[in-house]
This record gives sequence, C-alpha cells and structure tokens, in this order.
Amino acid sequence: MAGSPGRPLRVEVIGSGDELVRGRSRDTNFAAIAERLTGLGHEVLGNRVVPDDGDAFADALRAAAARADAVVTTGGLGPTEDDRTREGAAEALGVRLVEHAPSARRLAAVWRRRGLPMPPSNLRQARLPRGARAIRNEVGSAPGFRFLLGGAEVFCLPGPPREMAPMLEREVVPALRRLAGGAAPARALFVSCFGLPESVLAERIADLMDRGRAVRVGTAVGEGVITVSVQGTGAAAREAPRVHREILRRLGPDAYAPRRVSPGENLARLLLDRGLTVAAAESCTAGLAAARLADLPGASGALLGGVVAYDDAAKTRLLGVPRALLRKHGAVSAPVAEAMARGARRRLGADLAVAVTGIAGPGGGSARKPVGLVWFAVAGPEGTRSIRRRLPGDRSFVRGTAANAALDLLRRTVEGAPWVPGAGPALPGLDSNQE
Amino acid sequence: MAGSPGRPLRVEVIGSGDELVRGRSRDTNFAAIAERLTGLGHEVLGNRVVPDDGDAFADALRAAAARADAVVTTGGLGPTEDDRTREGAAEALGVRLVEHAPSARRLAAVWRRRGLPMPPSNLRQARLPRGARAIRNEVGSAPGFRFLLGGAEVFCLPGPPREMAPMLEREVVPALRRLAGGAAPARALFVSCFGLPESVLAERIADLMDRGRAVRVGTAVGEGVITVSVQGTGAAAREAPRVHREILRRLGPDAYAPRRVSPGENLARLLLDRGLTVAAAESCTAGLAAARLADLPGASGALLGGVVAYDDAAKTRLLGVPRALLRKHGAVSAPVAEAMARGARRRLGADLAVAVTGIAGPGGGSARKPVGLVWFAVAGPEGTRSIRRRLPGDRSFVRGTAANAALDLLRRTVEGAPWVPGAGPALPGLDSNQE
Repeated sequence: MAGSPGRPLRVEVIGSGDELVRGRSRDTNFAAIAERLTGLGHEVLGNRVVPDDGDAFADALRAAAARADAVVTTGGLGPTEDDRTREGAAEALGVRLVEHAPSARRLAAVWRRRGLPMPPSNLRQARLPRGARAIRNEVGSAPGFRFLLGGAEVFCLPGPPREMAPMLEREVVPALRRLAGGAAPARALFVSCFGLPESVLAERIADLMDRGRAVRVGTAVGEGVITVSVQGTGAAAREAPRVHREILRRLGPDAYAPRRVSPGENLARLLLDRGLTVAAAESCTAGLAAARLADLPGASGALLGGVVAYDDAAKTRLLGVPRALLRKHGAVSAPVAEAMARGARRRLGADLAVAVTGIAGPGGGSARKPVGLVWFAVAGPEGTRSIRRRLPGDRSFVRGTAANAALDLLRRTVEGAPWVPGAGPALPGLDSNQE
Repeated sequence: MAGSPGRPLRVEVIGSGDELVRGRSRDTNFAAIAERLTGLGHEVLGNRVVPDDGDAFADALRAAAARADAVVTTGGLGPTEDDRTREGAAEALGVRLVEHAPSARRLAAVWRRRGLPMPPSNLRQARLPRGARAIRNEVGSAPGFRFLLGGAEVFCLPGPPREMAPMLEREVVPALRRLAGGAAPARALFVSCFGLPESVLAERIADLMDRGRAVRVGTAVGEGVITVSVQGTGAAAREAPRVHREILRRLGPDAYAPRRVSPGENLARLLLDRGLTVAAAESCTAGLAAARLADLPGASGALLGGVVAYDDAAKTRLLGVPRALLRKHGAVSAPVAEAMARGARRRLGADLAVAVTGIAGPGGGSARKPVGLVWFAVAGPEGTRSIRRRLPGDRSFVRGTAANAALDLLRRTVEGAPWVPGAGPALPGLDSNQE
C-alpha cells in the first residue's frame, strides 16, 4: 500500500503530568510527535497538557477523540501513585483495570536482571484498561496500550522520550498508515539561515509567504537561526521544490543549508566533506560551540578539540595569549580573540580555529563594553580575521547565539561567503545583525 | 494587599504557531508561565497548542475562557501573514481590528533607530481588536494586548520568550494578583537528586508520595537528575517543610540540593562558597560539562577553564596524556581518564579537575567497550580517582547524562560524599546506576 495516496488523518496529542502543568519540566514529546506525523502527511490539530489527574485526563481524552481520527498521549504510565493515565483511560472507556500477565512477567524479569527485589509498586505498570492492547516498551519498564474510543484510535505511550520514540515508530506510525489507507508523504522542505533579522528575511520572501498561495511558507526562530519551512499538500506538493529553490536563491549565502539542520551539525558535515579539521577557543560560551559540533555522530573526524579559556590565566597558559595583550586591550577585544584563534589552531594542529570572547552578563558590562558584546575570530592557513557582534537578550541567549554565530563564521569562511549577513548595502552595522 | 490570603485563580494557557503544531519548534513558554503562576499559588488547568489559524485560535480561546478565570496566550503576533492571533481574538470577541496609534508610532521609531525603511508589513503588528488594551513590548516590536471574554481576563503575549517573559511579569502577574484579591504564595519546595533510578527513589519516599496525603509529592526526571517537588495548599502548606526535610534525610548524599537547581549551577555555587577552582577535561561531552558550570552568572570565579580533547592527539598535546597510555588502554579507560584529569588540573592550576571520556555512539562501540560506556576521573590535592558508568540511551542522552555525572562526582568529592549512589548494599554495580 505504501506510496498510494491516503487520507490525511486528524491527530490530537495529550501530554499529562503535574511537572508539566506546573512548569517544572518541559514537554518535548509533542514537538517530536507532531514533526513525525506531519512529515507523514497527517494533520496535527493540536496538543493539550493536563495534570496528573484521572478525571482531567479522561475529559481531555473524550474531547480529543471527538475531534480527531487518532489520539496519542504521553506520560502518566510510571510506577508511582501520581501516574494516572491508566486510571483516566479506564474511566473514559467505562471499564476496570486488569493485570496484563505478559507485562507483569516482563517487569519481574527486568528486576531479576538487575539483581534487585522488585518494588511492589512496579506492578501498577502492568495494569491496563480491560480490552486495551499492550504496546511493548523495549527501553523502559512501563508498557503502553491502545484502544478505540468513539471513532478514534487512542495510543497511550510513556513520557520519557527515549521510551516513547521507538514505540511511536514501531506501533503508531504503521497503525496510522493502515488507518489512512497508505498516506502519501507530504513534501515538507526547509531552508536553514543564520544572521538576518526575521523581519528582514520575511520581507525578502514576503510574496512567497502570502497565505493565499497553495504552497505554505513559514518561519521559526531560535538563537539566531531561522528555519524556513515550505509545504504543499495535495496537488500543490509538486510546486514546493520550485518555491524552495527560489527561497534559497533569494537568501544566498545567509542560507546555510537547504534542509533543517543545526549550525553545528551542518558545519561538522561540511568540514568532513572537505577533509578539514577544526579547533575552538571559547571564553563566554565555555564549550558550547565545540559541544554543538560534536552533536553530529562521527564529528571526531573534523573536531580535534578545543580550549575553554574562561579565566585570563587559561588564555595565556593554554592558548599562549600574551599577558600584555590582555592587559592592554582586555579579554573582550579583537587582538585577544585573534590570538586565541591562532593559539588554538597552532596547539591543536587544526586547519581552522574559531575563538569567542564576550560578555554574557548579567554582570561584567561597562559603557564601552556592554553586556552582549562578543568578539569572534577565525584563524586559517590564509591568516586571521575578527568581527564583533552585539547580541541582545539574557545570559543564556547571548551564549547560545554566540556559539551559533561562531559556527556560522567558520561556515562562511569554508564556503568563501561574506561574513556580514544581508549582501548589499541594505543592512546597517554589525550591531544590528542579531536583532 | 500582598500577603493576605487570596482566591487561587484557574488559568489556561494557549500557544499558537504552525511551527509548534508541526513540531518544528518547541514551546518553552508554557513551562515558564506555568511555573511562575503555580509559584504564585494559582492553578494552571493546562495548555493548548493550536496552528496559525484564526478560527482554531478563536475556538480554543472561547473554550479556555469558559473554563478559566484567566487565559494567557503566546505567539502569533509577529509581522508576517501567518501570525493570526490578532484576527482570532477579534473573531472570538466579535469585533474588528483597529490601528493602535501609539504602537504604530513606536514601530516606526524602532525602524528609524535601525536606520532602515520599515517593511510595510510591520504595521500589521499595531492593529488590535477594538476595545482591547495594548501591553507594551520593551524588547521586540509586537505589542501584546488584553481584554475580557465572558468572565475571563485574556492576555495575548508575543511568542519569543525574551519578549514574553518581561510582559508576563509586568502586566499579567500584577493583574492576577489584583484579580485574586492578593493570592498567598504556595509553599512549593524541591529536592534535587542525581544518580538513583527513579523507581528506587520513589520506593524510598513511597509513603510520602501517597495521593491521600495533604502535601503533594511528585518527581520529574531529566538526564539523570530527579527533581522531587513538595507542595501543600491551604492548611497543608505548613506541613510541607517537614515533608521536605524528611525527603532530604532519606535521600542523604544522593540529594545534591534542597531546591530546584541544575547540577552545573549548584556545583558552581558550591565551589564559589568554598573558594575552590575547577577545570574540566572532556572528550565525548566535548565541552558540555564546562558550559553547564558557566550557566551560573559569576561562574568565572570558580571555573578556570577546560580542554575539549576530542582527538587522541589533543589529549597528548593539551593534557599531556602519554601516547603509550592511549595505545595500551585506549582512550576510554581508567588510566587515560585519570591522566586527563591530572593534566587539566596541572595545566590550568586548578584545585580540582574532572575528566570524561566515553563512547557516545551510535558508532564506535565494541563488545568490551559498548556504546554508553564512560570513564570519569577527578584529580585533587589528595590524588586522583576514577569510576565508570554505563549510560543508556542515544548519543544526546549519553552526552547530557555524562556531563551531569561528571559534575555530580565533583560535587560528591567536594562534599566528601560517597561516589556510588544509594548508600548501603541495596544497589547493584555501577552499571545500573543510571537506568
């Protein structure tokens, strides 16, 4: 059946947990589920987050089942008393909980392997609403389950992402494909961009973002990265690649990839492809730039290593930055950034090195060197070059954006692209780049 | 009025954006809003995420306003055509959009300061539902607004967290306080813990987690960190500190803080308090441990720096790990971890140094050294000590948990606590610590 055009399903998602409703934990499951199912051509109607409360879960489940063809829930399947999804599902179905013998045996086996007596509370996890089918959990101890409610197929999965994700893949994705009669994958294309303000980017592609068009173009922003999405459904699917190409053309070197990828993983791939090695010398980012390069499996072929030179003495000891330079210009300056990059390149024997030194805040700023001021330098076989940026936002935003900016400058260096975003005279000084 | 007992309000949250519904972006606003309002003693009923669609937003808004005393929405206020919150709010109210002159003037001024012509689409942001009151945005260009719908007070805020957060604080928090007649802050207490499996921890405090109790105890987990929350409302609020103390007593040295704090920020604070300096030598974590220490403003007083020794040559060049040691034992071994820690301590002149070397996967594993195997070492004035862990999960989980484990070993060293979680003989070998 695969490949034949299917009926796109309407899917609702429910996340449950007091820790979510009270803001103590962030729900990442919804984004993962929505991305996967949207990519398969289904329509995700929305997400609802409810507390650990069987009644609230049952209410949300009934409402979602009335709107949607399928409902996916996550969380509330753990061993503790505050896990109420089993009870809520049973309530919505109007049935009792019964012990599912294979799941109970599996739980006992897991604890035997650990060489530990099983805490009796763990058996709660083997109780399922009568009539529900268990979904096996290969990673953790709590089984999931599925059942029909009204016209909707309901899948209850555990909350930990590394347990949820394989169960979604193994059970929910094939079930939805069958239910849809073989849904055709939608053409979702992306452009990843760094350095332009969102509204400047949006103006450049305003005509393509018009809502009257069959191909839908949208943007999402995070730490200086703008991801442009291009999606056409039905007959418009064939139009999407043309729109995608046009966006790439208009954004030029400010677009760093014709797909959705982080600056770190993209750069690591680029360096591996070109056979180049890299090192990082980081002060205010304290290792974030190197860590983001290492997000790509196999990054060790390109990333030799780095130095976190947080303290001035570390800049001297590990990178050979002359003490006199630090005294004269201060740690946040072009000469020090350049000396850091040269030192990292030399000491690690890398083709290229990037350096970041700045004031992440909230303290440490001055009138001449305000919070958010960051100097970057790249050292390579053809010499060393530096640039400054003024990044807005709090400590975490400044550090995250600075790490991405460092990676983007390396990328521009490797690709021979201009360092200043927004080719042409339309953009003001560097200070406004990140607004 | 502050301090007088108020009526806890029921609050609903709505996030809008195609990028959220399609899983291209994660909504962090809900967690931030829920945490803040729960901390003020209000009850957050839940969150709903809807696409960029005026009708869907209007439907969600009406449903939320019917259930809640107050509704906070985020997103959909930007300048582009796919921002539909203004239209949806006007639809729910049954009014037209009208230009808000002060907001239009403010937008024009922002672009004048940038020295750029304002893209005409930006003026969309100054159109508000007739009768709504503008909420000033000090950080970005899109104003928010508020209005009454049925009996509920509705606040529409922009999506970018650094714009949303100050508007929540300045406008929503005081408005809810007035509405509630001065709500009493709830007693929400926390214990942060690292190293125990969640179900083992839950067994230790099972009686306190019983749902029949007036003081509610819950847990949330992430990268090996377990956060235990303790909350009593109304008359039970006075009981919470006693329960909190009892949990701290039972968890002993596995609890690293009597509040909610990350392992990195907690350790940086601890080192500053004790006047100790630290350095990190990281292979598979590639800078994450150092970067997490630097999350604390002022961490530079304790974190001298670190070395990302991803490549074997970097381990030798920057940390002085003997080549022969690498050849004989391999990079993922006790002798190399110890040599890395000693090298970082010596070269950075720190009181303590931690080293991490492991196999993050998905490739690179073997039968003897499987994916997830990580060696840690801490070097200090009294010598060097190492330990291994077998961490489950994917590359990102292994790296994140390994960074936390490194920080926790430093913490245990500074506090003189045992390195192996679960004091007493109840726990098996190290391999199961992180399950």
